[in-house]
Amino acid sequence: MKGVLISGRASELEPLLLPRLPADVCLDVYSDASQVTSSASNGAEFVVGAPDEIVKVLPSLEGVRWVQSTWAGVRPFLDCSRRDYQLTGLKGVFGPSMSEYVLGWSLALHRSILKRAAATSWDARLDSGLHDKQLGIAGAGDIGVFTAVRCAPFFTSVRGLNSDGRACEGFDHCYARLDIDEFATGLDVLVLILPDTPATDGLFDEDVLARLNHGALVINAGRANSLETGALTRLLRSGHIGASVLDVFENEPLSASDSLWDEPNLYVTSHTAAPTPMSAIVDVFLDNLERYRCGAELQGLIDFDRGY
Amino acid sequence: MKGVLISGRASELEPLLLPRLPADVCLDVYSDASQVTSSASNGAEFVVGAPDEIVKVLPSLEGVRWVQSTWAGVRPFLDCSRRDYQLTGLKGVFGPSMSEYVLGWSLALHRSILKRAAATSWDARLDSGLHDKQLGIAGAGDIGVFTAVRCAPFFTSVRGLNSDGRACEGFDHCYARLDIDEFATGLDVLVLILPDTPATDGLFDEDVLARLNHGALVINAGRANSLETGALTRLLRSGHIGASVLDVFENEPLSASDSLWDEPNLYVTSHTAAPTPMSAIVDVFLDNLERYRCGAELQGLIDFDRGY
Repeated sequence: MKGVLISGRASELEPLLLPRLPADVCLDVYSDASQVTSSASNGAEFVVGAPDEIVKVLPSLEGVRWVQSTWAGVRPFLDCSRRDYQLTGLKGVFGPSMSEYVLGWSLALHRSILKRAAATSWDARLDSGLHDKQLGIAGAGDIGVFTAVRCAPFFTSVRGLNSDGRACEGFDHCYARLDIDEFATGLDVLVLILPDTPATDGLFDEDVLARLNHGALVINAGRANSLETGALTRLLRSGHIGASVLDVFENEPLSASDSLWDEPNLYVTSHTAAPTPMSAIVDVFLDNLERYRCGAELQGLIDFDRGY
Repeated sequence: MKGVLISGRASELEPLLLPRLPADVCLDVYSDASQVTSSASNGAEFVVGAPDEIVKVLPSLEGVRWVQSTWAGVRPFLDCSRRDYQLTGLKGVFGPSMSEYVLGWSLALHRSILKRAAATSWDARLDSGLHDKQLGIAGAGDIGVFTAVRCAPFFTSVRGLNSDGRACEGFDHCYARLDIDEFATGLDVLVLILPDTPATDGLFDEDVLARLNHGALVINAGRANSLETGALTRLLRSGHIGASVLDVFENEPLSASDSLWDEPNLYVTSHTAAPTPMSAIVDVFLDNLERYRCGAELQGLIDFDRGY
C-alpha cells in the first residue's frame, strides 16, 4: 500500500513515523505540494498532512480514498468539490492545551496578574477572580467539552453554543446557534473555539457582542472567520468589552505592522493556544491506518456538510 | 451574652453582621485595640477579629473563653502565654482564591502569558505548558487540599508536604516534614502555603531549594517565615530557579524601596493571593457563636501546640 505525507513539519514527523510504519506500507514524504510529481504519487491510496498543501494536489491524486488532516480545522477541503474519499481530522489532542490557554488568560486578566507582574509598589486592592463570573464557550466539540470540564470548577457556570443545543458534558446548558443572543447575554468571559465553516462566518457581530456583560473578556482561539474584528475593537474602545485575546487571524502570521498589536486591552498570541503535538499526529494517523487496512471505521471522520 | 469585635475592617463587617446577630447578644465594635477600654469590654465572653489587634488586649479581657480569628493564620496567639480559651481560625474559605492564584501564576509563566502580553510581533515558538510538570504543595491543610484538587488535572502529579506524611485528598503522595528533601527533589512548581509556626521557620533553605528541577517556579502564598529569601534570590540569579512569585513578607506592606521589587524573574504581589471574603467571616463566626451558646464543638479549633 502506498501513501503520501505532505507537511511543512515533515522533517519533524518523519523520524517519529517511519520506524512505526508497517513494512508493507510505502510513504512518499514532501514538505510542500510543489514537490509532489504525478509519477511520485502514482498509486497513492491515502494522504496525511496539512490541509492547505494537500488540496493543491488532491485533484491529481485520483487513487486517494482517505485523507488524514494534521490540523484540527479542515476548511480547505470543504471549499474543494471532490468528496469521493474519507476525511479524518485530528480530534482529542487539543483539549489540554486549550484549557490552559483559556484559564491562563482568564486569570491573567481577572486576577490582575499582568498588572501585578509590572507593579513597583504595594497594592492591596483585591482582585475579582472568576468565582462570580459566567463563562460561555462557543463550539462544544471535543476541544470545547474538555475545556468546559476543566474550567467549570472556577466559574459560576459554563454555557455552551453548538448547532442544535444538545446537552454536552461540562456545560450547565448548551444553546443552539439560533439562540446565540440568549447564549451571549450576561457572559463575563466569552471563548470562541469554532471551526471555520460557512455557518460560523461572522457569527459574533456587534449585536451579539453588545449582549456580553460590561467589562467582559473575549477570547478567540478557534478560527478568525467567526468574530467581526471591527465590532470587537469598537466595543473595546467604548469600554463595553474589557479585554480581548486573539490567537487566530485572517492572514497568519499577523504582520508586525498590523494595528491590532497596538490596540489597548487587546492581546495577540501567535496561533499557539493549542499547538499540535507531533507525537499525537503520529498516534492518530497510525491508529487510523490500521483501521483503514482492516476496513474498520476511521476515528475523527469529518462530515463534509457540517464541516467538522 | 457580650462580645467584642476588633478589626480594621469593622466598618465593612458591622453592617453584614449586626442584622444577623441573635437579639440577646451584645457586641462592642472597635477598629483597633487602642480604642478598647476595660469598662467597655467588661464582661465580654468572646472576641472576634484580627489576631494582631486582639492579642494587645487579650490579657485585660479576663472573661473571654472563645476567640474567633478573622485570619487563616493565628501566630500572634501562639506567641502569647495565655491559653485558657478556645481559639478558632478561619478555615474552608481560602481555597478557591488560592487555587486561582497558583494556577494563574503557573500558567502566566509556563504558558508565556506575561511575555506574549507584551509582544509586538509574531512568535510561533510553542509554550511548554503544565502537562509535563511536577507540582509540590507544602502545607496540606484545607487550603492545600482544595488547591491540589483543582490543580491536579493540569499537572503530571501533585505531591504534598505535611507534618507526618498522612495521605490527603488531591495529592498523589504526601511526604512528612522530615522527608522534605525527597519532597523537593524534581519539582517544577513549588507552592508554599504553610502556617507561621516555630516548626516552619526557615524550612525551605538553600539545600532544599537546590533540589528543585532546573528552571523551577517557586510561589510563596503562606507566610514569609518558611522561605529563606536570600537563598531564593541566589538561586534565581544563578538560573537554577527560573521564576518566583511572593505574596507574603516579614514586614508588610513591603516598602517601595525594597530591592525585591527590582529582582529579575521575581514577582511581588501584595498579600492578595487569598483575600478573606467578608461574607465568609460572618458565616463562620455566626455558626460558631451558635455552637458556643449550645456548648457544641467549635469549627476550626486551633491546637496551640501544633499552631494550626
